[in-house]
Amino acid sequence: MTEAYTPPTVWTWDKKPGASAAALNRPVAGATHDAALPEGEHPFQLYSLGTPNGQKVTILFEELIEAGHAAEYDAWFISIGNGDQFGSGFVEINPNSKIPALLDRSGPEPVRVFESGSILVHLAEKFGAFLPTSGPARTETFNWLMWQMGSAPFIGGGFGHFYFYAPEKIEYAINRYAMEAKRLLDVADRRLGESRFLAGDDYTIADMATFGWFRGLIQGDAYGDAAQFLSTSDYTNLTRWVDEIDARPATHRGRFVNKPDGIRERHSAADFAPLFAKGAAGL
Amino acid sequence: MTEAYTPPTVWTWDKKPGASAAALNRPVAGATHDAALPEGEHPFQLYSLGTPNGQKVTILFEELIEAGHAAEYDAWFISIGNGDQFGSGFVEINPNSKIPALLDRSGPEPVRVFESGSILVHLAEKFGAFLPTSGPARTETFNWLMWQMGSAPFIGGGFGHFYFYAPEKIEYAINRYAMEAKRLLDVADRRLGESRFLAGDDYTIADMATFGWFRGLIQGDAYGDAAQFLSTSDYTNLTRWVDEIDARPATHRGRFVNKPDGIRERHSAADFAPLFAKGAAGL
Repeated sequence: MTEAYTPPTVWTWDKKPGASAAALNRPVAGATHDAALPEGEHPFQLYSLGTPNGQKVTILFEELIEAGHAAEYDAWFISIGNGDQFGSGFVEINPNSKIPALLDRSGPEPVRVFESGSILVHLAEKFGAFLPTSGPARTETFNWLMWQMGSAPFIGGGFGHFYFYAPEKIEYAINRYAMEAKRLLDVADRRLGESRFLAGDDYTIADMATFGWFRGLIQGDAYGDAAQFLSTSDYTNLTRWVDEIDARPATHRGRFVNKPDGIRERHSAADFAPLFAKGAAGL
Repeated sequence: MTEAYTPPTVWTWDKKPGASAAALNRPVAGATHDAALPEGEHPFQLYSLGTPNGQKVTILFEELIEAGHAAEYDAWFISIGNGDQFGSGFVEINPNSKIPALLDRSGPEPVRVFESGSILVHLAEKFGAFLPTSGPARTETFNWLMWQMGSAPFIGGGFGHFYFYAPEKIEYAINRYAMEAKRLLDVADRRLGESRFLAGDDYTIADMATFGWFRGLIQGDAYGDAAQFLSTSDYTNLTRWVDEIDARPATHRGRFVNKPDGIRERHSAADFAPLFAKGAAGL
C-alpha cells in the first residue's frame, strides 16, 4: 500500500547511502574518476557490452569482416555495474556515458563515435556497405534506423524496466509500456510481412539495429516471462526475420562479443574458438 | 492508496468503453479508417503538428528557404486527438503512425520519409546543408543527432508523461525520469560549455533536433512547473544556446507551424503574416 504522492517544488537527488558511487545512475554528467581506456592494435577500438545496443555494432563489424572489408577491431568489456562508463577516458569518447563507444583510428586523426546509431552510420559510410548510398532505399533505411533509435527506449527503458527490473510492479506503467511494446512489435511484423528486410530486399544497418531488441522478446530470454506476457509468438513475420538474421554467421559471432557468457573481449577471429568449442546454445 | 500489483501471465488490452476509438493509443499498428491526405502544389508535403518533434522539420525547412534552397513546402495539420495519424493515407507514409511524416515529390518518384531524424537527414543530404558531407564533423553531427533521438523518449514519454500528463503521480517513475532528464540537460550543458553548437562551430540538424526538446524546459512552458522542478536555470550554457537558436528568423517561423496558437497550415511565407501581426510572445 502506498500513499498518494505529491512531487516537491524542486526535485533533489535522494542518494541512497549504501549504494556504490561508481555504479549509480546520476542526475549529472561527466567523469567520476580518472581511468584511461585500453587500446589494442587494430584501427577500431570498441568499448562496449553485449546488450542489444552493443550487439548492433559487433554484428556490423563481423558482417564487414565477413564481406572482406578491413574492419578488424578490438572490443573491450565495459562493466556498467562497476561504473566503467563514468571513467574519464570513456567520457572523452562518449560524454553521454553509455555503451557502445568507438574510437576510430583509421584516418589521419582519431575520431570519437558514440550512440549505436551513429556508429552504424559511420562504419557503413566508411566501408560503403549495408546502407544504400543514395535514392529511396537510403531514405527507407534511415526511416527504419531512426524508428529503432526512437523506439528502443520504450522497449528497454520503459517496458523492460517496469515489467522486470523495477523494485515494485506499477500497474499503470506496465500497462503503458506493454501497450507500446506490442504496438512496436506489430509495426515491425506488418512491415516484415511485405518485405524481406526492414528497408526492402537488402539486409541493412536498420535490421542490425533492430534485431537485438526483438530477438530476445521472440526467443524468450528477454525480461523474464516477457515473451509470454506480450504473446510474441503471434508475430510470425517478425519471427521469420529474427530466425533469418540469427542464422547468419556474423550474427552468431557478433551477438556474443563483450558478454560474460560469450567472449569478454574480442581482438581477432580466433577469440571465438572457445565459444564455438563449448557448443553454447545457438552456436 | 493502491494495492500491490501482480501482472497477469498474458497482457490483454483493457479498452476503456467510453474512449474515442480514433484517438486511443493502441497495442496494434495499421490504419483504423480510410482517409486520403491532402496534397498541395510544392514538392514537399509535410503532415505534422508543432510539437518538439514536428518543429525539428519546420525549422529546417525555414532555414533551407532562408538560405536560398528550393525547399518550399506545404505543411498540413495532423490532429492526433482526432486520430488523423491512424488514417490510411498517413499510415502509408508512416507505418508507425507518428508525426512528422513527409512525402517528397521532388524526384522521379514520390518518396516517403518518416521519423523526424530521418526527415532531417533526408533534407540535409538533398540540399547539402546543415550536415557536413564527410569527416569528423559529419560523425560528430550524427553522434548528437542520434543522442537526441534516443534521449527524447526519456524526456517526453518518460519525464513529461509521469510528471505532468499521467492521471496519477507515481513517485518512483517521477524520480526515475527526473534523474535522467537532469542528466541529459547536464550532458548538453557541458557540451555547450565547450563548443558553440552541439557538433562544433556550425549550426547543424543535431541542434535543430535538440532545440525544441530543451527550449520549453529552459523557457518554462513545458510540462507545467517542470522548469522549476528540474531547476533548469542552472544550465547556463544550454540557456545561451537556446537563446541563440531561438533568435534566428527561421526558428521564429518554424516553431509556430502546425500549431493551434501559431499557424495551422503553412503553404507559403505569406502564411506567417497574421502571426507576426498579432505580436505573439516571442515573435
